Amino acid sequence: MDAPDSLDRADPLAAFRDRFDLPAGVIYLDGNSLGPLPKATRARLAEVIDRHWGRDLIASWTVNGWMDLPLRIGAKLGRLLGAEPDSMVAGDSTSVNLFQALAAALALRPDRRVILSETGNFPTDLYMAEGLAALLGRGHAFRQAPADAIEAALDETVAVLLLTHVNYRSGRMHDMARLTAAAHAAGAITVWDLSHSAGAVPVDLAGSAADFAVGCGYKFLNGGPGAPGYLYIAPRHQTAPLPLTGWIGHAEPFAFAPSYRPAEGIGRARVGTPPILGLAALEVGVDLALEADIRLVREKSVRMTELFLRLAATSLPGFGIATPRDPDARGSQVCLTHPDAAAIMRRLAARGIVGDFRPPDVLRFGITPLTLRYAELWQVIAALAEG
Amino acid sequence: MDAPDSLDRADPLAAFRDRFDLPAGVIYLDGNSLGPLPKATRARLAEVIDRHWGRDLIASWTVNGWMDLPLRIGAKLGRLLGAEPDSMVAGDSTSVNLFQALAAALALRPDRRVILSETGNFPTDLYMAEGLAALLGRGHAFRQAPADAIEAALDETVAVLLLTHVNYRSGRMHDMARLTAAAHAAGAITVWDLSHSAGAVPVDLAGSAADFAVGCGYKFLNGGPGAPGYLYIAPRHQTAPLPLTGWIGHAEPFAFAPSYRPAEGIGRARVGTPPILGLAALEVGVDLALEADIRLVREKSVRMTELFLRLAATSLPGFGIATPRDPDARGSQVCLTHPDAAAIMRRLAARGIVGDFRPPDVLRFGITPLTLRYAELWQVIAALAEG
Repeated sequence: MDAPDSLDRADPLAAFRDRFDLPAGVIYLDGNSLGPLPKATRARLAEVIDRHWGRDLIASWTVNGWMDLPLRIGAKLGRLLGAEPDSMVAGDSTSVNLFQALAAALALRPDRRVILSETGNFPTDLYMAEGLAALLGRGHAFRQAPADAIEAALDETVAVLLLTHVNYRSGRMHDMARLTAAAHAAGAITVWDLSHSAGAVPVDLAGSAADFAVGCGYKFLNGGPGAPGYLYIAPRHQTAPLPLTGWIGHAEPFAFAPSYRPAEGIGRARVGTPPILGLAALEVGVDLALEADIRLVREKSVRMTELFLRLAATSLPGFGIATPRDPDARGSQVCLTHPDAAAIMRRLAARGIVGDFRPPDVLRFGITPLTLRYAELWQVIAALAEG
Repeated sequence: MDAPDSLDRADPLAAFRDRFDLPAGVIYLDGNSLGPLPKATRARLAEVIDRHWGRDLIASWTVNGWMDLPLRIGAKLGRLLGAEPDSMVAGDSTSVNLFQALAAALALRPDRRVILSETGNFPTDLYMAEGLAALLGRGHAFRQAPADAIEAALDETVAVLLLTHVNYRSGRMHDMARLTAAAHAAGAITVWDLSHSAGAVPVDLAGSAADFAVGCGYKFLNGGPGAPGYLYIAPRHQTAPLPLTGWIGHAEPFAFAPSYRPAEGIGRARVGTPPILGLAALEVGVDLALEADIRLVREKSVRMTELFLRLAATSLPGFGIATPRDPDARGSQVCLTHPDAAAIMRRLAARGIVGDFRPPDVLRFGITPLTLRYAELWQVIAALAEG
């Protein structure tokens, strides 16, 4: 087994840690819940606040490119996530984007009534689907299948397969291309939630033939607390009706025409006035994600999760492992289980080790290759072993 | 007629101007489109970015009150707008909030099919209604009436009366209590857009018996570019179904229960993870609006619009006046018309006077009593007179 110091010295991503502000004495394993602050974000926001808002005022919408932010960041996200050009937009919350995607997906399959998801999917996805189905009042039914039984559950009644690519709880990662192909073979539309994927694992939306995708900006993308989310619509679906027909998605927003006429392409997926402070911070995080080669990120992530699991297996009797053992089926997190998980996580926090407790018994550790050092994994294992 | 200097010296709100950053040499009459930067916003955002996000990281959701922001700012907006306690929430765009309000309002009148609005209402309100109606597919029809004919158009077919309190274009202000009473007499539900009212004119949501209201934070509330909007739901309607059932509106968001169960009261109107940067900036603006007595704000606003119109009538032959002459029917803006309006506004901009051109012929000047000096009105009139 390699020594931690030599692993860190050989890490091609090591220099990225200095691009972030991390408090002294903290080992941060919660970047999959709230990514840390990129140093450049402070300067970027100061520019937007002082020079753009404070000095240029309303003119900033054009002269400082505010109006371009949703599509400009969308294009960058598209490069990160393997999307076709002009198929992504940033803005609104993940929940709102999911509502847009689901409504459009259901409209593409008007004769089908089942929304299929994974047992234990992130609840907001299911909640938003519930609200949409109740609003539509057309008798849509929900079906949930365990990860291994999703393909078998795809039949001719399924309108939409709604999946989170990497499960927030277990860290299990789906094969996007394979499940999308299975959905398409059954005549269903896919809606992928990339909240725990973007910036952490390679995603190939176009290559996977995905239909719709959404995700949040505040986890591995380091876009800041409550950062705007994003929406992907495959070019072939960009004429599907979206329900949130706001003025920024209009073909001519400043004509103030009395009736809605959508912009061409992905621009129609914009809704209200873009949230500039949140978008500016998000762009810094997305730029960092693009600057780091996602293949190197994934390589370090796999090495770190493998190492963590190996150390846990040898040093932590009494702990279970809830993350898939196969790295190809695992996102960028490690989940251990223990009957005293809540108390253990509190003790770790008192020592400056920040992870997540997920009831009833899960200790969740996010692996963020841009900021995490191999040596820190040993420290976490040691702290867990001491109890 | 009073001299400008004596008016400014006697202005009880004069000290507020120094609470804002305004660039030298600029007369800013566009605070009804993007309010200027409050000086306190810079410090507040630095605190949220450096100390909360940068140092306290994920713990900020609890220890720094991030999770409370939507309801805390909502409560402050409620005080400003005469709402009942626990009836307002901040977050999401005005468009998204309007979708929520309209959907709930339509659900309260399932047997009616007409959405009545004002001819020339702000298009995004109409666009959002169009999208919702298309999604529902229940044959909702749109009817628009000129401001003076709205009451006559209220009949037993009208489900919702959707109005902007102060028209974005003409500055005409509706009598909220009277039109709400007329709507209720006809059995209709009201949805008010307060985007051009909040922070500029007194609003009494509870006293007017309003049903739903929405509005934006970046105009007279000085909440920053694309600031979060807000939603008011009268307590009697807070069990009406909302379509955007996100996890933050759940009764127990961190239980990650598989099915949606709404929080009690207005809390259910929260949707996705709150946009913290935008909310923090918005709160500074709302605090300033509360600190200024809205009656003094209105008094100065009326005095300024009266003065502006009087000076225009005497000094600007060739210009029409598109704002109502009756101050009770006018919000906090003055609109002139001129066949060369676009060119005139460009010439004003070249002299540092920032207003808004609205096609085809409207020159719109926002009157923001917290930052505007009487003397500046004379300067604007002089610039317009010189051509």
